[in-house]
Amino acid sequence: MDKKNNGKKITAAVVGANGYTGYELLKLLARHPSVERVIAASRSNEGEKITTLYPTLEPYFGGEVFRGCGDGIIKSADVAFTALPHTVGAALGGSLYDSGVKLIDLSADFRYDSLALYESTYKVSHPRADLNEKAVYGLCELNREKIRKADIVGNPGCYTTAAILALYPLIREGVVQSEGIIVDGKSGITGAGRKSDTTYSFCEADENFKTYSPVGHRHTSEMTEKLGIKSLSFTPHLLPVKRGILQTIYARANTENYARIEAAYKKYYSGEKFVGFTAEALPETKHVRGSNRCLIGAVIDKENSLIKIVSVIDNLIKGASGQAVQNMNIMLGLDETAGLPLIGEQL
Amino acid sequence: MDKKNNGKKITAAVVGANGYTGYELLKLLARHPSVERVIAASRSNEGEKITTLYPTLEPYFGGEVFRGCGDGIIKSADVAFTALPHTVGAALGGSLYDSGVKLIDLSADFRYDSLALYESTYKVSHPRADLNEKAVYGLCELNREKIRKADIVGNPGCYTTAAILALYPLIREGVVQSEGIIVDGKSGITGAGRKSDTTYSFCEADENFKTYSPVGHRHTSEMTEKLGIKSLSFTPHLLPVKRGILQTIYARANTENYARIEAAYKKYYSGEKFVGFTAEALPETKHVRGSNRCLIGAVIDKENSLIKIVSVIDNLIKGASGQAVQNMNIMLGLDETAGLPLIGEQL
Amino acid sequence: MDKKNNGKKITAAVVGANGYTGYELLKLLARHPSVERVIAASRSNEGEKITTLYPTLEPYFGGEVFRGCGDGIIKSADVAFTALPHTVGAALGGSLYDSGVKLIDLSADFRYDSLALYESTYKVSHPRADLNEKAVYGLCELNREKIRKADIVGNPGCYTTAAILALYPLIREGVVQSEGIIVDGKSGITGAGRKSDTTYSFCEADENFKTYSPVGHRHTSEMTEKLGIKSLSFTPHLLPVKRGILQTIYARANTENYARIEAAYKKYYSGEKFVGFTAEALPETKHVRGSNRCLIGAVIDKENSLIKIVSVIDNLIKGASGQAVQNMNIMLGLDETAGLPLIGEQL
Amino acid sequence: MDKKNNGKKITAAVVGANGYTGYELLKLLARHPSVERVIAASRSNEGEKITTLYPTLEPYFGGEVFRGCGDGIIKSADVAFTALPHTVGAALGGSLYDSGVKLIDLSADFRYDSLALYESTYKVSHPRADLNEKAVYGLCELNREKIRKADIVGNPGCYTTAAILALYPLIREGVVQSEGIIVDGKSGITGAGRKSDTTYSFCEADENFKTYSPVGHRHTSEMTEKLGIKSLSFTPHLLPVKRGILQTIYARANTENYARIEAAYKKYYSGEKFVGFTAEALPETKHVRGSNRCLIGAVIDKENSLIKIVSVIDNLIKGASGQAVQNMNIMLGLDETAGLPLIGEQL
Repeated sequence: MDKKNNGKKITAAVVGANGYTGYELLKLLARHPSVERVIAASRSNEGEKITTLYPTLEPYFGGEVFRGCGDGIIKSADVAFTALPHTVGAALGGSLYDSGVKLIDLSADFRYDSLALYESTYKVSHPRADLNEKAVYGLCELNREKIRKADIVGNPGCYTTAAILALYPLIREGVVQSEGIIVDGKSGITGAGRKSDTTYSFCEADENFKTYSPVGHRHTSEMTEKLGIKSLSFTPHLLPVKRGILQTIYARANTENYARIEAAYKKYYSGEKFVGFTAEALPETKHVRGSNRCLIGAVIDKENSLIKIVSVIDNLIKGASGQAVQNMNIMLGLDETAGLPLIGEQL
Repeated sequence: MDKKNNGKKITAAVVGANGYTGYELLKLLARHPSVERVIAASRSNEGEKITTLYPTLEPYFGGEVFRGCGDGIIKSADVAFTALPHTVGAALGGSLYDSGVKLIDLSADFRYDSLALYESTYKVSHPRADLNEKAVYGLCELNREKIRKADIVGNPGCYTTAAILALYPLIREGVVQSEGIIVDGKSGITGAGRKSDTTYSFCEADENFKTYSPVGHRHTSEMTEKLGIKSLSFTPHLLPVKRGILQTIYARANTENYARIEAAYKKYYSGEKFVGFTAEALPETKHVRGSNRCLIGAVIDKENSLIKIVSVIDNLIKGASGQAVQNMNIMLGLDETAGLPLIGEQL
Repeated sequence: MDKKNNGKKITAAVVGANGYTGYELLKLLARHPSVERVIAASRSNEGEKITTLYPTLEPYFGGEVFRGCGDGIIKSADVAFTALPHTVGAALGGSLYDSGVKLIDLSADFRYDSLALYESTYKVSHPRADLNEKAVYGLCELNREKIRKADIVGNPGCYTTAAILALYPLIREGVVQSEGIIVDGKSGITGAGRKSDTTYSFCEADENFKTYSPVGHRHTSEMTEKLGIKSLSFTPHLLPVKRGILQTIYARANTENYARIEAAYKKYYSGEKFVGFTAEALPETKHVRGSNRCLIGAVIDKENSLIKIVSVIDNLIKGASGQAVQNMNIMLGLDETAGLPLIGEQL
Repeated sequence: MDKKNNGKKITAAVVGANGYTGYELLKLLARHPSVERVIAASRSNEGEKITTLYPTLEPYFGGEVFRGCGDGIIKSADVAFTALPHTVGAALGGSLYDSGVKLIDLSADFRYDSLALYESTYKVSHPRADLNEKAVYGLCELNREKIRKADIVGNPGCYTTAAILALYPLIREGVVQSEGIIVDGKSGITGAGRKSDTTYSFCEADENFKTYSPVGHRHTSEMTEKLGIKSLSFTPHLLPVKRGILQTIYARANTENYARIEAAYKKYYSGEKFVGFTAEALPETKHVRGSNRCLIGAVIDKENSLIKIVSVIDNLIKGASGQAVQNMNIMLGLDETAGLPLIGEQL
């Protein structure tokens, strides 16, 4: 994919382009006004025409093939996105960083401040522990200044993005207690990635709803570390939709004054294009499907002294590839909204 | 619908047969081995052929028409099911009771012990307050002996059935605290009834997920009254599926001993055909879709001192029409499982 | 699964019980009033608890395990259903027949009168060519008398069932020409079987519609042989639904007199419980989902001298397992409707 | 919605903005690089905030309200899109044309060359018969030069767009016969518009598939007029998807030489951005969902002397609002692809 462009001309590489987040990155980058060239790499599809796997990309990638993940051309990119399993992301991404490529890693490898917490959560040794301190957590709205100067960004998890954006202001401003938080999460099936697993087959997943990993889901420790709290209870569920996360969050209220909720969100997100507060009109997943936005609403349940918060994102965009492009925009000094969809699909 | 039958020969009337619970009652009763005749009544469809609205019922109701809701023939029934809005259910059902028909009312009118709680919850005057004391709450597994002798049964709400069956044993046996319970409920769209409302249109509801009535949903007071607790926080959500309720319930643990959970459920449900305990293999909605079963699973979240309980039902069957037929079976001294599906559809 | 039963007591075996048609057979047989015992066999699941794969079957198969496909106990069955790939069906089913078990084979192996046509269509040698003449084509409504005396039945294909039932009367009665027939078929995804193939994953199949095998689909030769015509053009499509086939059939009209259409269907299907003619009110897939019925409607397109016929079935029931049970009922002299659902699910 | 822009600065009005095609126009125009201002008008929503109906449009229309359809400000627009029922489109659109606004009408009112054919098809008198000769049929790829000079464009129907683009080259080049063509059409539910009709409710439409208007659908005469043929047989079906049309077209082959098919499509569509020929790899609706593209594939069925053509579009984009914007681009001398999505959503 080549295109003419004014201003900065960027070459971006997507390593692990055969998964759903890889596909979404290709789509976003193909239409990005400052990206001149996109290199798509995939171990399992090396040498195959991109349009064989993705007929929809024909207008931008017609005739091109997937590179191998070790192809030298990737090192010529200005920025690389690694959409790979954990440990593979750090190993392969680390060598790209070593070659001077700015790295945005979509695995869990560079998300944690605490190496020990990463290793205990994922039950592995970090293959590039030496780089962990250089990496910045890429939750754009809360970490923008650090991202601006970063060469390695750990792109946040999908559930965590929705949860942290919703909780951070309320915890920091003392609107809710940091103990006893319950996060009841629901995600569309693209969250599981491109898998040939009957669990995610149409016949097994449609018209069904279920819980999974009811205790100890890995995103839990990412949430607690970033929120600076000791624990929370997180329970993910599988929705029969393609895209979308809705988190219903129960937090013990320190106040019954709704204005304090509004003030907290205003303080952190006023002026943000990609995070919106909808007050008591709670957002629905279709309000953000296909967009890079996170919408947050809240109500007070006085009888139970709770604040109920609802947070929605498109798991493939703000929850993965869109936020990755937002991180690229920040790292490279581009307009932060460039190439990112603002309007959800609704229909 | 007429059919020959041995043993007791029952005539059953369904008043309000044009809604989804009405339809489901017609289906169940048509195949019930002890029901000889089914009278279908509907105000808005009076005089219309039943198969015009329900082509699927042709094998049993071919040629028959809907009666009006005031048709005298309804009084000849042994048992009447009123599937009508609240206050209408009690008014019309009450007059059937006065005529000696056993009444199973699917509205909220006869669900409450406390008339005051009913009236404050539904913001109406009870049209037949005189009958409230005679009515028995029709949660079969917990109230069987009273149902056996009842002439009026208030059929439970759908969310409440799933929540009470899950919580009652644990609260009674002291396995969980009665304070701070959170019920995160998700229901399929048939729960909203047959509505020509764009909210429930395919284009607006498919690929979407949302919260509604996030504070003060009416089923809350039904849950607290029957569980004998002061309050709980209930938040319903709308799933893009036709049928199915899954309740994710968070209760503060009094114990970390899983055997106490098992013992509690065993005590209440051992031998029950329609309630099953799946232990830590949490049930999914497809496991009960199309059946009259409620499946309950539970895990202990030690880090947060919570017990997480998952309870699933088919909202139109165990959550409405199936339980209504189960109540009929008990009231009339029939085999309690007669005419009720045990196997969920899964596919 | 054991159950008490009056009258004949049958033991039935399902070989290949781990696929979708196998599952549906287990469900139907479990509830069948004359079936006392069901043996479930599966090569890949041998020794595994049935409820691990199928939690919904717990009320009937709780505690039982899958047998291996070669387990000697299968030969003790009165009747065996082989739900296996072609050639495997005939080989394994043939040895059961040799042992005196009545055989209903759901593969294509025993569907053809012409061995040569079978072998050229499926591009294999028939492993039990010696049995082909003994086998009867199990399209119940058109072949009932032969089925009654058969020891081997070749259960028809799903698309073919819907097409032949719709076309046979009109061709035989000369209402349509036998040349130039076009069958535009659409099937739900269970038609592809339980497959861990991304093509049938929720994310790839939902909100999509496509053609497949646009020329030369194997069911074509089954249709032409049974209809006694030289050729027809059949094009299958994949619907984003679990169950259901709708065939839109275009046939050149020999008449503009609608009464001749009605008379043709009446002649063949009058009194049939499982085949219905809906005239110009064309049937929808939900009218038969979950039932063993085939509904057929037709309109005349005078401007184009065509008769358009719409035929619907549930591909897993009348298109596979339900018809197989119907064949069993006929072969064993039972009530032909025993254990077979008449009412479609609609919701 | 105001935005800065270089080059031409356009004000566009959408009249009838409360329907699905109106919504899609608002989305496309909001992101269009040459559109400075979008006026949204709706009779039934006059005075209501746009974001109340469409929360997703908040980033572009936050704070704005729907105008009434007769609001004088509409006459200040450079171009108006009328997304209204037939006869209303011509009446209201005609008065905008009288005021000097370029008109793109999405109803059927300006699609026909023959006024008589329009009036007999829609069974109405044309309210602005005087303007019919000035109107140009807006099928961009086949009528570009006329559109360039037009002040009134009749935007094509959705089914017709997919059928004509597929058939026109083959008929013109003599690859297929013009007699005996059969068009088996399938459309997503947005094709029915925003309707509070239980037929289109999730519970009635999901997991269902059906035919409708099996004879004499109005789009038939639009197809035959534009293709210059005497008749064809068109049968629409309702798919349980939101968006997407797939037409399976059966035409009698004049040749068995595939190269002639390729040559025909190449002659008409070579260099077209929005129409693609996929040869024997037949396209699926997800390949174009969310994009303004039409993809066409074809196979030869030699045994039946047929060419089977499959044509797919997104009914709301290339089938309605996208093509309308493409018409605007042509009429106003803008880049024809401006503001129009090229990549389908796939997931």
